[in-house]
Amino acid sequence: MSQEKMSYREKLSGVFAPIATPFDEEGNLLLDQLASNIRKLNESGLRGYLVLGTNGEFKSLLEAERRKVLETVLSVSAKDKVVMAGTGRESTYESIIASKEAASMRADFVSLIAPSFFAKKMTDQVLLRHFRLIADVSPVPVLLYNNPEVAVLTFSTSLIGEISKHPNIVGMKDTSKGNFASYLLAAGPEFNLLAGSASYFFEALVMGGVGGVLSIANFAPDACCKVFDLWRAGKFEEARTEQYRLMTLNQKVSGKFGVAGVKAAMDFAEFYGGPPRAPLFPLTMDEKIKLREELTVAGFLKE
Amino acid sequence: MSQEKMSYREKLSGVFAPIATPFDEEGNLLLDQLASNIRKLNESGLRGYLVLGTNGEFKSLLEAERRKVLETVLSVSAKDKVVMAGTGRESTYESIIASKEAASMRADFVSLIAPSFFAKKMTDQVLLRHFRLIADVSPVPVLLYNNPEVAVLTFSTSLIGEISKHPNIVGMKDTSKGNFASYLLAAGPEFNLLAGSASYFFEALVMGGVGGVLSIANFAPDACCKVFDLWRAGKFEEARTEQYRLMTLNQKVSGKFGVAGVKAAMDFAEFYGGPPRAPLFPLTMDEKIKLREELTVAGFLKE
Amino acid sequence: MSQEKMSYREKLSGVFAPIATPFDEEGNLLLDQLASNIRKLNESGLRGYLVLGTNGEFKSLLEAERRKVLETVLSVSAKDKVVMAGTGRESTYESIIASKEAASMRADFVSLIAPSFFAKKMTDQVLLRHFRLIADVSPVPVLLYNNPEVAVLTFSTSLIGEISKHPNIVGMKDTSKGNFASYLLAAGPEFNLLAGSASYFFEALVMGGVGGVLSIANFAPDACCKVFDLWRAGKFEEARTEQYRLMTLNQKVSGKFGVAGVKAAMDFAEFYGGPPRAPLFPLTMDEKIKLREELTVAGFLKE
Amino acid sequence: MSQEKMSYREKLSGVFAPIATPFDEEGNLLLDQLASNIRKLNESGLRGYLVLGTNGEFKSLLEAERRKVLETVLSVSAKDKVVMAGTGRESTYESIIASKEAASMRADFVSLIAPSFFAKKMTDQVLLRHFRLIADVSPVPVLLYNNPEVAVLTFSTSLIGEISKHPNIVGMKDTSKGNFASYLLAAGPEFNLLAGSASYFFEALVMGGVGGVLSIANFAPDACCKVFDLWRAGKFEEARTEQYRLMTLNQKVSGKFGVAGVKAAMDFAEFYGGPPRAPLFPLTMDEKIKLREELTVAGFLKE
Repeated sequence: MSQEKMSYREKLSGVFAPIATPFDEEGNLLLDQLASNIRKLNESGLRGYLVLGTNGEFKSLLEAERRKVLETVLSVSAKDKVVMAGTGRESTYESIIASKEAASMRADFVSLIAPSFFAKKMTDQVLLRHFRLIADVSPVPVLLYNNPEVAVLTFSTSLIGEISKHPNIVGMKDTSKGNFASYLLAAGPEFNLLAGSASYFFEALVMGGVGGVLSIANFAPDACCKVFDLWRAGKFEEARTEQYRLMTLNQKVSGKFGVAGVKAAMDFAEFYGGPPRAPLFPLTMDEKIKLREELTVAGFLKE
Repeated sequence: MSQEKMSYREKLSGVFAPIATPFDEEGNLLLDQLASNIRKLNESGLRGYLVLGTNGEFKSLLEAERRKVLETVLSVSAKDKVVMAGTGRESTYESIIASKEAASMRADFVSLIAPSFFAKKMTDQVLLRHFRLIADVSPVPVLLYNNPEVAVLTFSTSLIGEISKHPNIVGMKDTSKGNFASYLLAAGPEFNLLAGSASYFFEALVMGGVGGVLSIANFAPDACCKVFDLWRAGKFEEARTEQYRLMTLNQKVSGKFGVAGVKAAMDFAEFYGGPPRAPLFPLTMDEKIKLREELTVAGFLKE
Repeated sequence: MSQEKMSYREKLSGVFAPIATPFDEEGNLLLDQLASNIRKLNESGLRGYLVLGTNGEFKSLLEAERRKVLETVLSVSAKDKVVMAGTGRESTYESIIASKEAASMRADFVSLIAPSFFAKKMTDQVLLRHFRLIADVSPVPVLLYNNPEVAVLTFSTSLIGEISKHPNIVGMKDTSKGNFASYLLAAGPEFNLLAGSASYFFEALVMGGVGGVLSIANFAPDACCKVFDLWRAGKFEEARTEQYRLMTLNQKVSGKFGVAGVKAAMDFAEFYGGPPRAPLFPLTMDEKIKLREELTVAGFLKE
Repeated sequence: MSQEKMSYREKLSGVFAPIATPFDEEGNLLLDQLASNIRKLNESGLRGYLVLGTNGEFKSLLEAERRKVLETVLSVSAKDKVVMAGTGRESTYESIIASKEAASMRADFVSLIAPSFFAKKMTDQVLLRHFRLIADVSPVPVLLYNNPEVAVLTFSTSLIGEISKHPNIVGMKDTSKGNFASYLLAAGPEFNLLAGSASYFFEALVMGGVGGVLSIANFAPDACCKVFDLWRAGKFEEARTEQYRLMTLNQKVSGKFGVAGVKAAMDFAEFYGGPPRAPLFPLTMDEKIKLREELTVAGFLKE
């Protein structure tokens, strides 16, 4: 089926990789390596890509670099892949500019993280106005992005209950711990909720989530898709077994090392990972050797 | 004495206003009103200005707007006023670009807030490298800016003990609660420490701080300078009495309302305050009326 | 099957009520009402009772009162019900005394919350020694109790991986958010993990948990057992639907009002709830009326 | 002057030691060593003692042990020393019992820490009722005890503004960071506020505090009294210099190691310190050797 005729729900059902942004040792942006990573992921069962998210170190990119990154991904992304672009900024004004721009570049969805610099002032009333003002004018549908670890605040269930009524806010990526089902209860089963971490991907599906945006999908897309596919096929026990494998992988990589770990694992798996941009540090040589061993023993890398 | 011959300590001794950035109701930047505010502050006893800080809503400004704001302040600032420019960004790379640019525009100091998006990864080792890389190349001396409320993390005393040895890192603005003397103890009395809140300005001076960057100096510069001048003149009791007045003022304005409160009070005091940029809300009419009354009763506004 | 021959796993599989402790308006302990509540619960499908837990306000009871409460429950508890006693205290010493005493009174399990007064000192090493010293001498098997909301700290997965090897530590009640599957992964599927909140009871079962200790089981035991029974019977969809009903109930009662809400709902459901002991406040009359209405509309109370 | 005729303010002006409770290696209470420590402190310039506080590990004592500890201190305390007894418990009821008992044993003041098990329910309204109910019936005047590190919650300034009006609540020990002057502003200068940490003892005096309850006074009473005496004598510069020495001492002992550190330092200074009661660990032999060296180098111990 061509994407044009798919419902939002169909477009969002499955696994997305929050694309890591390649840099060289000096911190220069490497667009060719980005393109090459995407081409490789195009062959996987991934539903699509989230560009300019947390794992993309979007806060460490100049605005002009963000544009290039999004352009690059959109230009090489396979036809059947759905592309979400992170366009949340600290001001409503700048978020609107970025959302319109992403839409003009033909991103399928924009993804809005909450402004967090003035986190204590981000009451439900403030967030409601902020997201509505953007959604009102965004040419493409909006997904919210709830990530207390980086954005400090956690969306309240009443905020989600209210904002999910907006016709142009069609779902949310939830990276908070232990709130997934509460958001679904508040928003209703039509709201497209995606797990933002592999650590509860299966539970999210069980409770009614449509998919996941999983950092480890950057280097292990098939392991992620397997959970989804088994679940869809009604193979409950096998899906759960795979979920526990995924959790192990996620703990060793993203849980322990964050973006730097994801990039190291990408290198192992023959993607271009490279170092994160400073201030973040890459893994030390010892950490890399140990991680490689662990992933090999766990069966995620060929010996 | 001409500024050229002043030591860093002399340049930093006194009260600084963290300049608020004027917007109209639609969120457009108002540079004329900014210039006019600065001209009025030029006549006060303020030691100088911090441009593009928290109260300047710098995270809500486009990079091009930041440049214009700094240019405007530098162009109208009186000769005897010292100008610090906020140039901390989420990446080391962008912080270096911003610091060089501010220096080329003739800011006297750059002020570096910590990257905080990946706050959990901001170990002392990471922050040390980050700040050193910037300070190594910054053409003007660097001040650190410690503000856990907006930057999530609090600098450790051992980080400050270590980093204060860098020849181009000459001081810090500390907006954390209850750590001021510990930082001075760690860095040594030569380190130029400034209070980042009126709530402990006097205690900071008592313990060996050189001055303060006080949000309420945007509309009440004289009340702030009074504490400093009385302290300098050895009038301990009177300085403390004024400090308690300042605390009251600070609680009612910045403590309760943040930037939006500072801007409302600026309007009362015949500066241009205006609304903050969205997502922040301005005070409601009721809040403004009540605040105006309180400030009048407390003697900060003429009836 | 007689309880004597049941495995720990069998004894722990199902729903437990963390028994609320009845007081009169002056805060006096009401043992008769406690006995009467238990007799009524004896007729439900509950697997058993947790006495002297958070919902039992055990921290607000004198040690002598704790003894009486446990005695009372044990004396009227039906033969087929399993009784866990909360015996975690701030010192290892006192926890041992309490655990031995509970065992001598014939409690089936003791439940150990972490000491939390010196929460910052409660490293894994400290907690390991603490729990092992108690488990080494406890005549009955030990369950850990992980509840960051009241005990401040959250058990690390590596602590649980390690401590679950102790032969006398047979399981854990987990009341933290979003960690359940990680604990199971760390401890292995043999470890008896119980959900400590109705908000994720079904997810806990799905991931391999054996049961739940659910505050709302104090007044709605059947609604809780229904989720468990449907799950056991392989009726996945229906179990999930009931889980969402349970979440709604839990949010309106425990989530919003804590123990005071549970007690108000007990009164509605013809148990003795009464007021919590001071410093806690009971619900106001308005809150009670509103809650009663909501529970009636939601179908949990007969009109 | 005999204590009987002293005002509360006079009784509270100076340095208090929050008495550590001696145990042997098995955790048994050592009352003789406690008596001997007090006799030695009787000869110092301390204003008095706080018994059954955080440093007394009161939460790790059985209620009967608490009684014995208080009895012991009261029986050997010198006539000119003022004794405060920690009587805050988790329930209002038990706090009243403990306060009456302490008064009947002739403690001069009772000190009330906030109930914290249900910290999220401890609104200002709840705390107001709790403290008032106790103060209404306490035969001796009440001091509040604000310690967020162990009691989780921080008193709001409006709570302190309100509760300080109660005729039997005469002061507060504040162990929170950076709030001291705000409490004084809220309560008025008549309220007797004591610093609960050596790290800001001097600042507290400067702002209008009457004294301090300082953990390091358990082994270094003279160094603590020196700051107070110099301040009283108007020797500002020397007092500040001593304060910085005190901070260094406090960081190395209490800051780094808590109660266990205080006890190790007591052993060095020829008091009986001994180990803390489990779950707390004593310092390792290496930590003790290093600490002893540091304290010797810093001039706090004779070589």
